[in-house]
Amino acid sequence: MVDLMIKNGLVLTMNKERLIIKDGCVAVEEGKIVDLGKTKEIEGKYKADEVINASEKIVAPGLINTHTHLSMTLFRGLIDDKKPKDWLPTVWKIESNLTREEVYCGALLGALELIKSGTTTFSDHYFFMEEVAKAVRESGLRACLAQALLELMGPDLGQNKLSYTVDFAKKFRGAAGGRVETFLGPHALYSVTEETLKKIREVADKENFRIHLHMAESKWEIEMVKEKYGKTTVEKLNEMGFLKPDVVGAHSIFVSENEIKILAEKRVNVAYCPTTPIKAGVGVAPIPEMLQEGVNVSLGTDGAGSNNTLDLFRELRMAAVIHKLRKLNPETLPAFQVLEMATVNGAKTLGMEKGIGSLEKGKKADVIIVDFKKPHVTPFHNIPSTLVYSTVGGDVDTVIVDGKVVMRERKVLTLKEEEIIDKANACFKELVEKAGMETKLM
Amino acid sequence: MVDLMIKNGLVLTMNKERLIIKDGCVAVEEGKIVDLGKTKEIEGKYKADEVINASEKIVAPGLINTHTHLSMTLFRGLIDDKKPKDWLPTVWKIESNLTREEVYCGALLGALELIKSGTTTFSDHYFFMEEVAKAVRESGLRACLAQALLELMGPDLGQNKLSYTVDFAKKFRGAAGGRVETFLGPHALYSVTEETLKKIREVADKENFRIHLHMAESKWEIEMVKEKYGKTTVEKLNEMGFLKPDVVGAHSIFVSENEIKILAEKRVNVAYCPTTPIKAGVGVAPIPEMLQEGVNVSLGTDGAGSNNTLDLFRELRMAAVIHKLRKLNPETLPAFQVLEMATVNGAKTLGMEKGIGSLEKGKKADVIIVDFKKPHVTPFHNIPSTLVYSTVGGDVDTVIVDGKVVMRERKVLTLKEEEIIDKANACFKELVEKAGMETKLM
Repeated sequence: MVDLMIKNGLVLTMNKERLIIKDGCVAVEEGKIVDLGKTKEIEGKYKADEVINASEKIVAPGLINTHTHLSMTLFRGLIDDKKPKDWLPTVWKIESNLTREEVYCGALLGALELIKSGTTTFSDHYFFMEEVAKAVRESGLRACLAQALLELMGPDLGQNKLSYTVDFAKKFRGAAGGRVETFLGPHALYSVTEETLKKIREVADKENFRIHLHMAESKWEIEMVKEKYGKTTVEKLNEMGFLKPDVVGAHSIFVSENEIKILAEKRVNVAYCPTTPIKAGVGVAPIPEMLQEGVNVSLGTDGAGSNNTLDLFRELRMAAVIHKLRKLNPETLPAFQVLEMATVNGAKTLGMEKGIGSLEKGKKADVIIVDFKKPHVTPFHNIPSTLVYSTVGGDVDTVIVDGKVVMRERKVLTLKEEEIIDKANACFKELVEKAGMETKLM
Repeated sequence: MVDLMIKNGLVLTMNKERLIIKDGCVAVEEGKIVDLGKTKEIEGKYKADEVINASEKIVAPGLINTHTHLSMTLFRGLIDDKKPKDWLPTVWKIESNLTREEVYCGALLGALELIKSGTTTFSDHYFFMEEVAKAVRESGLRACLAQALLELMGPDLGQNKLSYTVDFAKKFRGAAGGRVETFLGPHALYSVTEETLKKIREVADKENFRIHLHMAESKWEIEMVKEKYGKTTVEKLNEMGFLKPDVVGAHSIFVSENEIKILAEKRVNVAYCPTTPIKAGVGVAPIPEMLQEGVNVSLGTDGAGSNNTLDLFRELRMAAVIHKLRKLNPETLPAFQVLEMATVNGAKTLGMEKGIGSLEKGKKADVIIVDFKKPHVTPFHNIPSTLVYSTVGGDVDTVIVDGKVVMRERKVLTLKEEEIIDKANACFKELVEKAGMETKLM
């Protein structure tokens, strides 16, 4: 007896042997993959409570979004086509009035969007993270949550104390039936004091927490850090002994050849968010160079306030094409390598490579089922090409997290879609009013 | 009495005044918009055969794709991550065995994809164009079709004669109840002789045809043209007296400041395809510079063999973000300007600005209805931002061309979706076998 059987699918395992199983079957019990192989070999072995027919569909590991700010879905479209110097103060102005109810509202909206575009695990960095944890529990998603800590700039919500990020991490570790993991969340080198960062390093070492921070995100940051410390962001963090394999550095755009070597040597994980810095006119991280040096690079969407989407499939496409332009070479970052970023590399970034990122016996049953019988993915013949260049989030038919079906045939079972949308629209209006801003249809 | 009334929508007219009508209504009769305004003012004036409720939806002009090769949907995913020197011979090898049945099959698949992503008019350039015209007639789409002419390279299907492109243009002008317009289709300066191009110019002048060609698409092209003519592509075409307001130059990537001035002065239209040359590692056309000089720039997807999508919404997003990166300035190409490219500018490129591109009384009823009650476009408050940065083709709910509903609530009424997908998959297999190629799942 198993809880769930997914049969007749084209199973993309993303295991080390790059195994694909045609007419494949995945058997799930107590949240884990207990068997997988050819349907004809597996289906007779078990009785299943629920059977999903994945015929003409790809069965793949759920995507992993390693850098986002879930509740910022509420900011979507508010500050487009503006310079960072106009962008950031606006965000901070709105955020300084943020309530925990609003964070919860935005987190539910983000959770809906993640599920509907095939992400099963996300790594979040924001305020009032208890509210995000609540949304994770209700949505059925898996998440790594970090309570943000900004000491030197940014909004003051009374949470910018070391104790907040540490206490949250301790209290919520393993929450939502083990689906919540917690990280420490210093915002960045330029927004937190050296002293605090050293304390965070100590806590991380002692309590075995990972650290999620922004790193080398803008030229402006690098200049500020150089002025203060006489070094670049990566150099300074390295000098402080901060860089270890438990560090997740989001963005990492402005890093030199030598700094890439440091990231590789210290086994720092880079959460690469392709679109945000393109749309912000900032730059492109040297990703092929990092991969070449052996840096673990995973994918993220960043927040919907800047990107404006949490659909990792759009980021797969952008990641795959933008470096071909940068290098003037279309062989750069082939589709499969980008797919690894959003699955196995993502798992490694989050320290979860033993549990998620690929479909293998004994791993957690975080699975997406993607339709390939649609005009825009026809003819269907190559999986990486289809998933990276043609598929959109809306092609994801069914989503399973921890062995539970959270979306079936595009219907999210764990959340009330229409209610959440209405509430988010109302919440947005309030936020804008509180900040004394105006919006216009055009 | 009117044929169709679309009511309660948020009507984005894209007219010169940038009018938006809240709770708007569009009345359609005999393929044309006969009235539009507030629903409460319009709906009492007419009885309608069919009423569409566009509540919580944007009612917008159908998108216009000004450069594609529709039947190349059959090549989707076949030649990704490869250098042009490997890419082009592969394409030509397959194309040299192409049958008219295959072109028809690919055209139907492409038509499905266009409709399902909100494009109502496309401008096509390929072989066996009678077959594409047939697909246009059946699908209900509007199109400008050009029979391709390659004399000096490329596949030989027995159609590379001046008479073919001219005869097709004459014979199919006004076909499909006026929904087909025909252009002359010289492939490019480097692939057609100077003599033939001069004859094409003469025919165009005499018969009042527009000309659709590839222009300044690669460095390789520019070098070849320079070697042959001692000039760049735009310079040489200009010297020949070829450049006039009836020319549609696809791509136009490698153009100097001075050449942009020539394009502006000669009122040449540029069909800009953002993704293909990024994915091919070729470059980015200087679009903001062209707009600055007054060049009319419209949007295209190119063929799905290179892009790999015909979804113009993805190109809207790419067009809007990539120049922000190029200019390191997020104020570059704001969302509304990109929306203009895919609507009013597209109409101008095709010489159809009096008929399509905006929703105005007397214009043709080419209308799309786009859902904005979905998690990934919430909160909804700004139309250009939503359509350019968040919307995907799958958000288009209903498509109307020439006053006829061709898709209602995501169901295409004019074409048999499943049958076309199956046939396209079979066609693809045959094509690959004929070319002695192999495909692999990964």
